Amino acid sequence: MKDKKQNILIIGAGLCGSLLALRLGQRGYNVSVYEMRPDLRKVDISAGRSINLAFSDRGNKAMKLVGIEYKVKELCIPMNGRMLHDKEGNTFLSNYSGRDHEYINSISRGELNGLLLTEAEKHENVTIHFNKKCKSVDFEKTTALFKDYNTKHEFVEDADVIIATDGAGSAMRKSYYLGKKFLFSFSQDYLTHGYKELSILPTKEGGYKTYKNALHIWPRGDFMLIALPNLDGSFTVTLFLNHSDGEYNFGNLTTPEIVTEFFKKEFPDALKLMPNLVDDFFENPTAALGTVKCSPWHFKGNTLLMGDAAHAIVPFYGQGMNASFEDVVEFDKVLDQNLDNWEAVFTTYEKSRKKDTDAIADLAIDNFHEMKDHVANPIFQEKRKIEMALEKNFPEEYSSKYSLVTFNENIGYKEAMLKGRAQDKAILNMLADGEIDVNGELKNILEKVKQQTEAILEDDRIAGLK
Amino acid sequence: MKDKKQNILIIGAGLCGSLLALRLGQRGYNVSVYEMRPDLRKVDISAGRSINLAFSDRGNKAMKLVGIEYKVKELCIPMNGRMLHDKEGNTFLSNYSGRDHEYINSISRGELNGLLLTEAEKHENVTIHFNKKCKSVDFEKTTALFKDYNTKHEFVEDADVIIATDGAGSAMRKSYYLGKKFLFSFSQDYLTHGYKELSILPTKEGGYKTYKNALHIWPRGDFMLIALPNLDGSFTVTLFLNHSDGEYNFGNLTTPEIVTEFFKKEFPDALKLMPNLVDDFFENPTAALGTVKCSPWHFKGNTLLMGDAAHAIVPFYGQGMNASFEDVVEFDKVLDQNLDNWEAVFTTYEKSRKKDTDAIADLAIDNFHEMKDHVANPIFQEKRKIEMALEKNFPEEYSSKYSLVTFNENIGYKEAMLKGRAQDKAILNMLADGEIDVNGELKNILEKVKQQTEAILEDDRIAGLK
Repeated sequence: MKDKKQNILIIGAGLCGSLLALRLGQRGYNVSVYEMRPDLRKVDISAGRSINLAFSDRGNKAMKLVGIEYKVKELCIPMNGRMLHDKEGNTFLSNYSGRDHEYINSISRGELNGLLLTEAEKHENVTIHFNKKCKSVDFEKTTALFKDYNTKHEFVEDADVIIATDGAGSAMRKSYYLGKKFLFSFSQDYLTHGYKELSILPTKEGGYKTYKNALHIWPRGDFMLIALPNLDGSFTVTLFLNHSDGEYNFGNLTTPEIVTEFFKKEFPDALKLMPNLVDDFFENPTAALGTVKCSPWHFKGNTLLMGDAAHAIVPFYGQGMNASFEDVVEFDKVLDQNLDNWEAVFTTYEKSRKKDTDAIADLAIDNFHEMKDHVANPIFQEKRKIEMALEKNFPEEYSSKYSLVTFNENIGYKEAMLKGRAQDKAILNMLADGEIDVNGELKNILEKVKQQTEAILEDDRIAGLK
Repeated sequence: MKDKKQNILIIGAGLCGSLLALRLGQRGYNVSVYEMRPDLRKVDISAGRSINLAFSDRGNKAMKLVGIEYKVKELCIPMNGRMLHDKEGNTFLSNYSGRDHEYINSISRGELNGLLLTEAEKHENVTIHFNKKCKSVDFEKTTALFKDYNTKHEFVEDADVIIATDGAGSAMRKSYYLGKKFLFSFSQDYLTHGYKELSILPTKEGGYKTYKNALHIWPRGDFMLIALPNLDGSFTVTLFLNHSDGEYNFGNLTTPEIVTEFFKKEFPDALKLMPNLVDDFFENPTAALGTVKCSPWHFKGNTLLMGDAAHAIVPFYGQGMNASFEDVVEFDKVLDQNLDNWEAVFTTYEKSRKKDTDAIADLAIDNFHEMKDHVANPIFQEKRKIEMALEKNFPEEYSSKYSLVTFNENIGYKEAMLKGRAQDKAILNMLADGEIDVNGELKNILEKVKQQTEAILEDDRIAGLK
């Protein structure tokens, strides 16, 4: 594998696959990428809709690795906090961090993916093939079977190594599962809730109809609406709602009248910005929200799963893309170790990485409950106020769970989760017991929180808990 | 469904299926059972090996429900505790409970299954068909496709309701998964360890070569050997060992010499009782240890998964069979509610039951670590001593996690898990902090443990943790 002329086949030219192709191209490997969709730089495959994503420090670390952070910055719309909307239309901005330089960004999936493809193709040793769908992988022979959507022919490609970055529905992961050649641990877990994309269109002048630099949330306990800004003045709006339970659910929102009634009752201020609601609602699909975990990611030194193919997560921490980009950073670090063979590379990579992708999967589900429910809960709001004050006044000494996960790209998700959860538990319990309150002396609160957090972690360690 | 003449098709006549057939037969339903294996009462399908299982109070509650607890008692060998064996061959008996009437039993899977089949067949409205393997289930049409192993023909059976009790490799669960007609959450998780069955044969006189009334354990940190007694004087011995890591593992135990060396070094006292070790080792398969969870168990009012088909667990809590039997008890309780239709029955059953089968799955993995490792760890041993003393002296006031899970059949696994884990954490931390010790005044220890357990549960509740 020290021979840079080795042939690496990448399945999938989405965000993770195109970044991986770029990085492996930079490192000098011969890289062939096969993507089932047409080239998104040439064909408008999202039918006029630019779907946006949250982009933050872990993702940006990967952009720095490949040297395109300034190009990416031009695609970003900073979101400094959550803009909460209550039923009366009152709004409240809750910053993501007490430190001004810490914010997340809204970015267009298509624009970013296109940039990565263009950068990857600048390398002579990188070739990208579109309209070629992977049907299965023979992981013992290190070959992949593709179908060419243009010619309708099937063909087999051979490589020294195959890396599948073909997303949550990965064909290679399916081959692992159905092959039964090794013990493959696998889970797919669906939430009771699904989602549907809607939109707030720009003003006639191309401006934003509501505050641009925030992630808007309409939390309603058992369901919620969110909106992220796009560069063209529009917002992509997403409704998260139970599939079949509750007074309103995707199962019974079946007529324009009921949909309008639901929005009028629950999201009246949003409805005013969405004259196109009913059309959007019935044109766009209702999609499922699932988490995928599996292990092992690799078969010997032949094949490896990366990105969503290895660990698909729900979107509530805004970390799906960031985690997949971080995969490439971590994989690159392992390549730097100059290990003897691909099996050692894959084993080392999975051993160090899996605990972190498991953690962000669990954190994303935590945040589902926090966003739809806790953000409107008084004790959680008090906690948030204290944490903002601690971050503002002791920027070097305190980071909330959200900050640890989102803005501390030099610690892993697992460490962020353990510390962040212990901090949350410490603050919530001290608030409940009256040991601290929002008007207390901050330095004193900081010391108590640190002490209590350490005590919680120590108690868990002694009890043999993870 | 109030019409008792409804036809219920049960797939699988193992422990759960035969108990379910018996109970539904008692309730007056028309029950047809299809089993892929031959009738185990007529054919010796385990090649002379009677595999035994741990049978305890939750399982016995089910036997009482169907009125055969006295017949089952005759098949039981009480095991009062764990007999721990160190490397020097020293033994130490650690009781399962401080209350004398609380113990578990070793029971033959084949004998118990045979008894349940015979009891079920006493009902005219119950028919059991052997050698008929279910290949798939059409859950929308409520039909199942079978292959007759004798005639080699395939045939389809129709029913009002299909209940699959066809074990960890359930054909109906596979149909749910592959059908993609609804969102099916599913996980299969393998441990790094596998297992292999071995044996200690009886003495020439048919007696037991080591102490009969215990579950023997040779804990060695990263692996272990256990042995359970059979009625014929033999013990079934099981080696739990890593598949591929560690100095010795299933991957490198490839010659009689290495196997003997391994046992001589790690289990010398067991080796003396096992002259047949090498033959057993190379004749018997190495099997995987996996956990299966899924949801939903039912499709509308048509089909339902029960027992291992719905929730396969690792064997370390001795609760696999007991949990499957408890499924039938809980299902029977729901039938008593006289709900309007099968969909309401299935929904109600899964809603109340799933949290408990999820909990025992997690507890069984906890106990894997406890058995191979913690039982030989000083602080865990001190905890165990304190708990034994508390149970002995305050039998009405204290039950350890093990007792809550094993001997308290009137609380669910979830409740047992939450309380039991909090107790463990309380005791371990108070021992580590010197707040209690094994020579302390017991009444005082009891109060401290109760108080601290409640505080731990309350802290978790405030933090929104489960």
